[in-house]
Amino acid sequence: MVNTATMLDQKEVEALNDALRDAEPKEILNKLLDRVPNTAISFSGAEDVLLIELCKTHASPPAIFTLDTGRLHPETYRFIERVRDHYNQPIEALFPDSTAVNNLVKYKGLYSFYNNGHEECCEIRKVQPLRTKLAGLDAWITGQRRDQSPTRVEVPVIEIDPTFSTDQHQVIKVNPLANWTSAQVWEYIRMFDVPYNELHDRGYVSIGCEPCTKAIGPNQHEREGRWWWEEATIKECGLHRGNIQENS
Amino acid sequence: MVNTATMLDQKEVEALNDALRDAEPKEILNKLLDRVPNTAISFSGAEDVLLIELCKTHASPPAIFTLDTGRLHPETYRFIERVRDHYNQPIEALFPDSTAVNNLVKYKGLYSFYNNGHEECCEIRKVQPLRTKLAGLDAWITGQRRDQSPTRVEVPVIEIDPTFSTDQHQVIKVNPLANWTSAQVWEYIRMFDVPYNELHDRGYVSIGCEPCTKAIGPNQHEREGRWWWEEATIKECGLHRGNIQENS
Amino acid sequence: MVNTATMLDQKEVEALNDALRDAEPKEILNKLLDRVPNTAISFSGAEDVLLIELCKTHASPPAIFTLDTGRLHPETYRFIERVRDHYNQPIEALFPDSTAVNNLVKYKGLYSFYNNGHEECCEIRKVQPLRTKLAGLDAWITGQRRDQSPTRVEVPVIEIDPTFSTDQHQVIKVNPLANWTSAQVWEYIRMFDVPYNELHDRGYVSIGCEPCTKAIGPNQHEREGRWWWEEATIKECGLHRGNIQENS
Amino acid sequence: MVNTATMLDQKEVEALNDALRDAEPKEILNKLLDRVPNTAISFSGAEDVLLIELCKTHASPPAIFTLDTGRLHPETYRFIERVRDHYNQPIEALFPDSTAVNNLVKYKGLYSFYNNGHEECCEIRKVQPLRTKLAGLDAWITGQRRDQSPTRVEVPVIEIDPTFSTDQHQVIKVNPLANWTSAQVWEYIRMFDVPYNELHDRGYVSIGCEPCTKAIGPNQHEREGRWWWEEATIKECGLHRGNIQENS
Repeated sequence: MVNTATMLDQKEVEALNDALRDAEPKEILNKLLDRVPNTAISFSGAEDVLLIELCKTHASPPAIFTLDTGRLHPETYRFIERVRDHYNQPIEALFPDSTAVNNLVKYKGLYSFYNNGHEECCEIRKVQPLRTKLAGLDAWITGQRRDQSPTRVEVPVIEIDPTFSTDQHQVIKVNPLANWTSAQVWEYIRMFDVPYNELHDRGYVSIGCEPCTKAIGPNQHEREGRWWWEEATIKECGLHRGNIQENS
Repeated sequence: MVNTATMLDQKEVEALNDALRDAEPKEILNKLLDRVPNTAISFSGAEDVLLIELCKTHASPPAIFTLDTGRLHPETYRFIERVRDHYNQPIEALFPDSTAVNNLVKYKGLYSFYNNGHEECCEIRKVQPLRTKLAGLDAWITGQRRDQSPTRVEVPVIEIDPTFSTDQHQVIKVNPLANWTSAQVWEYIRMFDVPYNELHDRGYVSIGCEPCTKAIGPNQHEREGRWWWEEATIKECGLHRGNIQENS
Repeated sequence: MVNTATMLDQKEVEALNDALRDAEPKEILNKLLDRVPNTAISFSGAEDVLLIELCKTHASPPAIFTLDTGRLHPETYRFIERVRDHYNQPIEALFPDSTAVNNLVKYKGLYSFYNNGHEECCEIRKVQPLRTKLAGLDAWITGQRRDQSPTRVEVPVIEIDPTFSTDQHQVIKVNPLANWTSAQVWEYIRMFDVPYNELHDRGYVSIGCEPCTKAIGPNQHEREGRWWWEEATIKECGLHRGNIQENS
Repeated sequence: MVNTATMLDQKEVEALNDALRDAEPKEILNKLLDRVPNTAISFSGAEDVLLIELCKTHASPPAIFTLDTGRLHPETYRFIERVRDHYNQPIEALFPDSTAVNNLVKYKGLYSFYNNGHEECCEIRKVQPLRTKLAGLDAWITGQRRDQSPTRVEVPVIEIDPTFSTDQHQVIKVNPLANWTSAQVWEYIRMFDVPYNELHDRGYVSIGCEPCTKAIGPNQHEREGRWWWEEATIKECGLHRGNIQENS
């Protein structure tokens, strides 16, 4: 293990989870940032902008990265730039490997996911760049919430990342919004004028890549706007694949 | 009173309300259509299309009218036509009086409601045409639901219309969806492939005139998409003004 | 004849046409406004806004009216209001007769023009309100240009209106932009920051009612965006029906 | 020089240019494909789809590649896929180097071109992937036309590429549409039902990356929809930089 100093064993993780079970997002973030400084926010360009807002007054706010798959909505690119300006913080846009994208597209076209499932494309455009990034971090912060989808009902506040930890390198995954509902997130965004993606004004709730995201109708669950041609119980893009393994 | 045969006194209305308190929309509609044949559906171009769907198998389905204010969304006009085709039923589009519109617009412009409130414009473009229409009907059917707005929490299943009844002419107002929630309405629309306004795929829930309607964001109440520059407790367009009077 | 004082006989009209053959739009407007004060601009909500711009410094600028068919684009309504604000002049929005609209729509639906041709709808929503208006005017000013369509190649600068003049009432029709090309109109609009309809930024050139107007593609003639299901040689909405009669 | 067999010296290029000065695009394509088989079409996702159409009946049609900058319009990605399906030919989507993109975006954000000019971003997202690709080709086919911009008035039918040829590797650049006008291209597309980018129905003519492309208004030159914050005389993305050098 490389990251001994900030390595948390299973016991400490469980203790933190117990302690933070009902904690507010800000308290969770503060605790994590103090305990594991080498951490970064994974910003998707959606309402997880709240993570950036909640860290802005911290003495040493975490770095921010986003997975620029090359297929985000123009509105999302504009939003990422707006967030960069608003918080005056660099946002690293992790880009996929060009050869891997070339090979995928050359043989299967630009929309292979509609026929073959989204895993292969997500693996190239999201998971690999994330894996490379996480190899240099001790922890990452995500916007996952328990109310987001059937695959996320058990999301803990803090966990040893089951997908990206290796024998050589443990990665902690922190989900400060796990306890919060969509309603709470949006109340906060509106109350404190947090910038948000303009797609949210056009029926979009959960936002990912352009071809794999759509606006939802009245009384639809937000997850119905993602990979709608697939089963709800397996809708994870690989970043949070551990959610599925844990549930099954 | 002109409409003696089908006139309901307050006692019969109360008895019907008691009997139909927990009734399904279809049962309410059937009861009303049997008791008061000279009735029509007021179709707004939104999810109250369900009223038309629920009546389609009735032996003598009610006539349908819509208030064509001259300011509906192009998408709503297309939807009204699609409904006309789908159910193969004429839909009367009640148009406002040209002189009244001319006078309003000439002196106050096309968007006076943003400054002066929506009542004056609604009065000309909706209430007057409706009043004229209701003078020839014994009852009208609306899509009002109790969960739609703070002004509608007390909406009864059936009532003597407090706004449009006159000493000479009583009008019954029936709200077959009063007991249903938005979730139930949409579950039905999706389950039975009822046609719906394409605006609902772009974040719109409650739909009225174009300048006075907007898409809502995540976790906003549907009524926040209507007359958003006014207080929630007075947001009625005059058609259902009685709701406010009753509540105050 | 009611309007004797400002009545022009055929000879004077011909003389004016000769004199103004190569005149600039502003000169034509000035001459007309001096000769026939009881005149008004017919503003369509498109680039004929130039007529208003060119009259704004005149000592007594003409009144402005627009034919509000009840089916204009939301963008056009917004533009009309913006023009009203910008020039600080009332714009009368002539609205069609409600009974006529009701009857058309009730029996033929909201899109009868796609099947039966646009004349019937235009007659109700445009021609009748215009006829009523012109009965009180001695002249009207339009944005017609010779380069707009095959039906307009002979448009004169000034004419005795062949469609709206009656035995009792002669109406002069003035087309100050007749000599100008689309390129000239747009150069002027851009050079002098004249407000324009936002639809022009989305591929729309000629703009009429929403269901009967569409954006054109690269290298299409502007008239291909209007009544595209009909023959080019008969595409006039009734306002300028005289163009067709003259040509045939 | 690696590509001796198909290498054209300046004299042969001039002779071909003389011979093909007034030739139709198809004749130019046939001549080039016979003379230099190792060639490919550079497809931008706009009306240069005509190049693919014109080659479809050739015995050995050229390969097709497109520069997927990661910032194309969703509509353009959909169009590229549609072209792939329609012609049943693979389209290689050349993706930029991830490290280069990461570094650009990390320090300058996602819209640095608006402040610093488009060259740096184009270099990373278009020129480098193209350079790599051209190293393996003897010729490439582009959709350049003389009427497209002030920088293209001298575009020859065929040339030794001044930008991408090196001492070790000569690249021929063929512009089969050089002699054609936009009007001719579009007449062909419409006459033969060639698929086209849906953006062309919304006022877009020249189409590049999403942040650097916009719809044009009536009577604007197509090049005004590209890099509009820069001078018209230097608007080339690096692919055709030689045009500027030649003109200056």
